[in-house]
Amino acid sequence: MEKLTIIKVGGKIVEEKQSLEQLLDSFAAIQGNKLLVHGGGRSATQIAAQLGIETQMVDGRRVTDEAMLKVVTMVYGGLVNKNIVAQLQARHINAMGLTGADLNVIQSHKRLPNPIDFGFVGDVDKVNGKQLANLISTGIVPIMAPLTHDCEGHLLNTNADTIAGEVAKALTPYYNIRLIFCFEMAGVMQDVNDEQSVIPHINATDFKRLVDNGTIQGGMIPKIQNAIDAIDAGVEEVIITKASAIDCNKGTKITK
Amino acid sequence: MEKLTIIKVGGKIVEEKQSLEQLLDSFAAIQGNKLLVHGGGRSATQIAAQLGIETQMVDGRRVTDEAMLKVVTMVYGGLVNKNIVAQLQARHINAMGLTGADLNVIQSHKRLPNPIDFGFVGDVDKVNGKQLANLISTGIVPIMAPLTHDCEGHLLNTNADTIAGEVAKALTPYYNIRLIFCFEMAGVMQDVNDEQSVIPHINATDFKRLVDNGTIQGGMIPKIQNAIDAIDAGVEEVIITKASAIDCNKGTKITK
Repeated sequence: MEKLTIIKVGGKIVEEKQSLEQLLDSFAAIQGNKLLVHGGGRSATQIAAQLGIETQMVDGRRVTDEAMLKVVTMVYGGLVNKNIVAQLQARHINAMGLTGADLNVIQSHKRLPNPIDFGFVGDVDKVNGKQLANLISTGIVPIMAPLTHDCEGHLLNTNADTIAGEVAKALTPYYNIRLIFCFEMAGVMQDVNDEQSVIPHINATDFKRLVDNGTIQGGMIPKIQNAIDAIDAGVEEVIITKASAIDCNKGTKITK
Repeated sequence: MEKLTIIKVGGKIVEEKQSLEQLLDSFAAIQGNKLLVHGGGRSATQIAAQLGIETQMVDGRRVTDEAMLKVVTMVYGGLVNKNIVAQLQARHINAMGLTGADLNVIQSHKRLPNPIDFGFVGDVDKVNGKQLANLISTGIVPIMAPLTHDCEGHLLNTNADTIAGEVAKALTPYYNIRLIFCFEMAGVMQDVNDEQSVIPHINATDFKRLVDNGTIQGGMIPKIQNAIDAIDAGVEEVIITKASAIDCNKGTKITK
């Protein structure tokens, strides 16, 4: 099977001109099949504020009422996605922007309102791996925004880490997959203030221990859980690393 | 050659829930290959106002400074496009949203600032008809937002009528094309206040006469010019009609 590199990038990296350009240079340089999943939360919060819409977060996740759904549809599906596509095309990458609604690539259902009502947030039911594989096989580079749909005409806000993990799993029948979660830090660290303390390997047992002893906290917990699930589902390699290091094998490797 | 129906729809139709649903029902019912080009100007004006950005129009065309480019990227590429895609998927149409940057389908250049500086507005250089035809041949229904790119990383705002006309022309080597411009009125009318006064056929000679005597004015002039150019370039049929009549051969036909 051919290789496929899936990069998930979020946070400040996609929302500041210089760091985005660096990331896109690195992404463009990756050889072979590739796919990008992006976030855009900071821009959504900023545009929402400009529109007089207050952002409410619970456990690091956005509560998405109707007005906020409109904002994330504009920001993730439009502003962030299309600018990445245009900038990759300028780098001769045949990028195509997608939400889960486009070509019905990701179906989801609205999360139940208990225990917390997150509003128009979608939990993934099915990724159409065959459709994505068909696109990739023709040289297309999918650029995926963190939006899915319920097949009844509604878009739903969906966590970008989740999308990256689910897409990776759905593509395992077609490709040997390397999944890289990029963020501001050098990897999963023993001490968040010490860049040198990156943990090189984490497996499911390590993960439990590191959560129990408080080394892994907050938003890192679902991120690593996604990574472990992906490995369990047959993804070849999952790496959590700095955006500037996406092609040099640094960071934390999630292993069996 | 197979047939392809291209629908251009703009104005209030795509921006009010009920009229959009009617349009999407009619669009979904069209047999065979199809493609939709949409506008979204009213929503862009509204969101811009909410963001404190003033809309400036010259000759019915939007002046697009950097802030307005951000708005139209969000509204056309995100809000309007992705909602149409999700609602067509709910109607079992395999819709895929595209700007001109996606798959490099429409290259343009920034319009010169003389005589009027329209800002980030793109004049179309090239439509990649082959790429679009490849998608359509696999059953994909492209949903095109009125944005293009300059191949140097910049999105540009481009008139949706122009996009519809240029896309139609670029697809003539692959399909027998019927191009339908939908708007609020029943067609080109002798008297805009009389729904019964639709002019059934207009050719290039009629067009000149109707512009000279003032029957055709304002935004209708470039719309019909686009239509005449499309016919000259080999598009089989161009119709200007009401959105509610897209599949019943009413309205104004543009002929050789």
